[in-house]
Amino acid sequence: MKTRIAILGASGYAGGELIRLVDDHPEMEVVHLGAHSKAGAKLGDVHPHLTGGERVLGSNDVRDADLAFLALPHGASSDPAMELLAKGIKVVDLGSDFRLDSTDRYEAAYGSPHPYGEQLGGWPYGIPELFGKELVGADRAAAPGCYPTSALLATAPLQQAGLIGDGAVIVDSMSGVSGAGRGAKENLMFGAVDEGVSAYGVLTHRHRPEIEQGLGALGATEPTVIFTPHLVPMQRGIMSTCYVPAQPGTDAAAITAVYESAYADAPFVSVVEQSPKTRWVVGTNRALVQPHFDPRTNTAVVISVIDNLLKGAAGQAVQCANVMLGYDETAGLPMAGWMP
Amino acid sequence: MKTRIAILGASGYAGGELIRLVDDHPEMEVVHLGAHSKAGAKLGDVHPHLTGGERVLGSNDVRDADLAFLALPHGASSDPAMELLAKGIKVVDLGSDFRLDSTDRYEAAYGSPHPYGEQLGGWPYGIPELFGKELVGADRAAAPGCYPTSALLATAPLQQAGLIGDGAVIVDSMSGVSGAGRGAKENLMFGAVDEGVSAYGVLTHRHRPEIEQGLGALGATEPTVIFTPHLVPMQRGIMSTCYVPAQPGTDAAAITAVYESAYADAPFVSVVEQSPKTRWVVGTNRALVQPHFDPRTNTAVVISVIDNLLKGAAGQAVQCANVMLGYDETAGLPMAGWMP
Amino acid sequence: MKTRIAILGASGYAGGELIRLVDDHPEMEVVHLGAHSKAGAKLGDVHPHLTGGERVLGSNDVRDADLAFLALPHGASSDPAMELLAKGIKVVDLGSDFRLDSTDRYEAAYGSPHPYGEQLGGWPYGIPELFGKELVGADRAAAPGCYPTSALLATAPLQQAGLIGDGAVIVDSMSGVSGAGRGAKENLMFGAVDEGVSAYGVLTHRHRPEIEQGLGALGATEPTVIFTPHLVPMQRGIMSTCYVPAQPGTDAAAITAVYESAYADAPFVSVVEQSPKTRWVVGTNRALVQPHFDPRTNTAVVISVIDNLLKGAAGQAVQCANVMLGYDETAGLPMAGWMP
Amino acid sequence: MKTRIAILGASGYAGGELIRLVDDHPEMEVVHLGAHSKAGAKLGDVHPHLTGGERVLGSNDVRDADLAFLALPHGASSDPAMELLAKGIKVVDLGSDFRLDSTDRYEAAYGSPHPYGEQLGGWPYGIPELFGKELVGADRAAAPGCYPTSALLATAPLQQAGLIGDGAVIVDSMSGVSGAGRGAKENLMFGAVDEGVSAYGVLTHRHRPEIEQGLGALGATEPTVIFTPHLVPMQRGIMSTCYVPAQPGTDAAAITAVYESAYADAPFVSVVEQSPKTRWVVGTNRALVQPHFDPRTNTAVVISVIDNLLKGAAGQAVQCANVMLGYDETAGLPMAGWMP
Repeated sequence: MKTRIAILGASGYAGGELIRLVDDHPEMEVVHLGAHSKAGAKLGDVHPHLTGGERVLGSNDVRDADLAFLALPHGASSDPAMELLAKGIKVVDLGSDFRLDSTDRYEAAYGSPHPYGEQLGGWPYGIPELFGKELVGADRAAAPGCYPTSALLATAPLQQAGLIGDGAVIVDSMSGVSGAGRGAKENLMFGAVDEGVSAYGVLTHRHRPEIEQGLGALGATEPTVIFTPHLVPMQRGIMSTCYVPAQPGTDAAAITAVYESAYADAPFVSVVEQSPKTRWVVGTNRALVQPHFDPRTNTAVVISVIDNLLKGAAGQAVQCANVMLGYDETAGLPMAGWMP
Repeated sequence: MKTRIAILGASGYAGGELIRLVDDHPEMEVVHLGAHSKAGAKLGDVHPHLTGGERVLGSNDVRDADLAFLALPHGASSDPAMELLAKGIKVVDLGSDFRLDSTDRYEAAYGSPHPYGEQLGGWPYGIPELFGKELVGADRAAAPGCYPTSALLATAPLQQAGLIGDGAVIVDSMSGVSGAGRGAKENLMFGAVDEGVSAYGVLTHRHRPEIEQGLGALGATEPTVIFTPHLVPMQRGIMSTCYVPAQPGTDAAAITAVYESAYADAPFVSVVEQSPKTRWVVGTNRALVQPHFDPRTNTAVVISVIDNLLKGAAGQAVQCANVMLGYDETAGLPMAGWMP
Repeated sequence: MKTRIAILGASGYAGGELIRLVDDHPEMEVVHLGAHSKAGAKLGDVHPHLTGGERVLGSNDVRDADLAFLALPHGASSDPAMELLAKGIKVVDLGSDFRLDSTDRYEAAYGSPHPYGEQLGGWPYGIPELFGKELVGADRAAAPGCYPTSALLATAPLQQAGLIGDGAVIVDSMSGVSGAGRGAKENLMFGAVDEGVSAYGVLTHRHRPEIEQGLGALGATEPTVIFTPHLVPMQRGIMSTCYVPAQPGTDAAAITAVYESAYADAPFVSVVEQSPKTRWVVGTNRALVQPHFDPRTNTAVVISVIDNLLKGAAGQAVQCANVMLGYDETAGLPMAGWMP
Repeated sequence: MKTRIAILGASGYAGGELIRLVDDHPEMEVVHLGAHSKAGAKLGDVHPHLTGGERVLGSNDVRDADLAFLALPHGASSDPAMELLAKGIKVVDLGSDFRLDSTDRYEAAYGSPHPYGEQLGGWPYGIPELFGKELVGADRAAAPGCYPTSALLATAPLQQAGLIGDGAVIVDSMSGVSGAGRGAKENLMFGAVDEGVSAYGVLTHRHRPEIEQGLGALGATEPTVIFTPHLVPMQRGIMSTCYVPAQPGTDAAAITAVYESAYADAPFVSVVEQSPKTRWVVGTNRALVQPHFDPRTNTAVVISVIDNLLKGAAGQAVQCANVMLGYDETAGLPMAGWMP
């Protein structure tokens, strides 16, 4: 019997991808689609590119399911997550509510107390390649942000190998527009986005503490990150270019060896020689990572690319659920995209 | 002394272009910028690409000016236009309020009575190449819609020459997104527009009666138009591909001759042999027109391209004002764009 | 045992899509990838978005296979097709070599004699929804061009129902750039294509006779088409807006009924009420068709959208192969795309 | 009498912009357009967006002129530059031939000896805001690369104020496609560029030594730069995000003061508070610079945006010529762009 899946936030971009992935998943089936503001609408009117358009969106109140994916706005996951868990329904939260591991960190990042502060630190952080053991058999997971996924996949091998030296890790990222969601905003109009680039949240973006926490969980003592996200005129994809101070004595061969070893058994992560393009992974759950080393400055320059809505959101959430439920990690997840 | 210009609707796309054109105009100067919802804002915060960013936007109440450009939403021009004219201030309305020439036509198109119905028919229709004589010395003008401008520049020479035969004229147009304005709408988000095309207003778009009226003013007895606008993923530009039934006996040479003659003295309209691209006229007040003739079906296929915000809006409005005020028709209007 | 598939022209856009589809097909497997100019290259260097990147591209000389897809430039299919058939290998040709049904028509369209003129008329024309019976059990098929697919799916139901009146059928189409192939050309550079639209091949495009032939095969006596293709700045997708003169007495209800009946059993074609966007079918083998009727001019205005590389090329080729081989028509073909 | 201008490389993107700027310049006039491979073509066929399309492109052999702009491929400027200077014609070279100041630096960057090595160090480096004094009255200038312009405008004020501390300066840049020129290349096709981003020339790009040289000329003793250029899907614009280690004791107020002072008299450079978008300067010769300071890491994060073809190429070249010839620095250079 298939695992019965509820998807809350079904009308958004990540919600749409979750529906598509679960519809195609050999071990899962959608039993509930929740969409607060669009409850009552037909799926085909909200996501005309999906099949099963006659399905009707319901409320975010789930009666029965085995596992729920929550693709809700920041802060909106906490209450339904607690209710679902109380009903014995597993939860994978794609939002930021349960990612940070302490109330201090949460309050510093979000400026308000967490309604269920005792939960923080108790949710496995859902990058299976880095923290997969905690996910096995878990009944909950906090799927990471899209930027932290790209930044941590790029930098984790160096941290795990003890090769990061003193100084800040700089993460300079470019994202497609879909990361900002589907709601109408003047700054996300075609007229505002097309043919231009801009930075935002410079030094203040809330994903910075999440990246630092991730490096800390991998062994860094006082991880310090400078993070600059940029908006570029494309639908999907994140590229992070990371500048990592290396321990003295590091060289290019050592760096390469560390990456190849770190991801040797990771089906979704490839260490590549050719300069990676986001376009190559769009539509897939894959990540490409390319390390460089600059001996002049003893700095590793590491580039990663992912699809922000898949490996950075819905795909990784399904990957987490696969691990939680004991399925093959790759079940139902696309490995090949299409071009152009 | 320069003509003192007021611009109402200064915060929109057409308003921004009006400011840019008037700022660079040798005979005009901006004395008032009105922006209902953004009154009090600095120009630099609303249009960061313009100079003079310290200027402050005011209300739509104009105390003193020689001529006002109205770039307001449909229906919002009528009252201010009447007030401005009563104060002796000339008016060029970029909206649709005064374009149609009878209350019947207006009510059929817009579904409600016109508040100043007696005005209809009294406003020169502002395509100087076709109706320029009425503009000379006028104190008011209704600048046409972007689609009618492109459709009428493409088809007028055939009508003027009596070469249009029986049957409907088909106008199939593609427009960049800026024609839909600057306000935030879900269907105009980058995520909704990019990488796709769609038709809208099929058989019902309000510019259809305006095109038919234009052909009628040029001599057609019962002009009948089928008009299909399409939205394409680009900022600016309209291309109209027009299918016009020809009178029996027409041939390609006659068609070409008619177009070259019609636009021989039009500084902004060029009849071209090379297949025109919208990109070539973006940023300019120019129109390119390319006639073809299909002897198999006795049909003229005529293509035109314009910049919807310039020749289709702000540029043509300034061109009208130039004619009204007795300036050189080309004064202050860009003839060269840039690529890519 | 799976059907062993050879793909010639594997390095192009359609070739890449064929690889992706066959790799995922439950009844097929790739046994040969031919790429004349890139023979010897690794698949991963040519199509970095695909899986199985270690596979090496070979020549276009196929030793053993059950069926070959030919995605070769115009004129390059004829020799290999004849050789493959002689070896008992079935052929689905995505090129234009075997689409036209007579040497007269071929020479008129392509300006040179066909090397195997006796073949013309003997290849089933591969739109399964319209000509599926001829495909059942066939050993060869000529997959149609992308524009004819979109035009015929839009107009065929009217022809089949005898509702097309006198006069020309006008097909006004917009295509994404991938239809022009992958080779480097100045007019297809990002700098040349982005932010502009243009028409090409006005009155001369070679797909016009193919559309006329298709209407003739459905019963039209002297089908006459005016066809205008436009290039728009997007990767994929074709929208055709078709203007079809209706028989006297036709009305909107009759038109709608005809379309719903025509495609009631077609898994890939949906008749839709909402204005269709190309984006909704990109990545799928689906077509959306929306008929309108203009009683003022007794004209049907019918809009269709497809993905030019799938339903307009690789997807439809696999669909043809499914029918030829007796598999489920939908086997291995994507029904849901993704947005944005 | 106007300064008579020759433009070599007139058929490229920068050449087209030079023509547009000089055509509109109050003190200059075009007297020769040279285009090696397109000699004999009409301007209107090569640059259909420009006026004066009847002008015919000539060879790169200039008989008479006062000043020549050279917009030629790398390495192709040296010979014509020497010939022009020998004829008493001033030269502004937009290429990289005369930018580096020593044969050592040149050979390290370009891998071959310079044909006129004795010239190196003798050409004023053409960023008027930083090195304007050397340009006054000069008969030659080496206009900088687009990336160095953006990087040096962003970092120079810190260097001039002695605020750069130990460690590498990181310059992470995004560029529109036009920087790569107009020639047909597979990796610059719309199908390859659209909807994706990539890095290139990581740690090896030839603009890195040019940036280091510039910082050295402003007083740095051993400037060390890590430079990563990225290609993004837009026509124009460069954004550089620069990470600069600050001297101990620096704070945000000091940084801001340094920038405001440095550019107080620079008509084209504005220090802005709002996060700058490339779109705001496209079509202009302006640069926007926004400094941030991160006290956690004692790092200045400075963002700059320019139009790569104007302030990064043709515009700055005209600005250099204005200074060389004693004209107003802003003569003929656009200050306002247009949006969207």
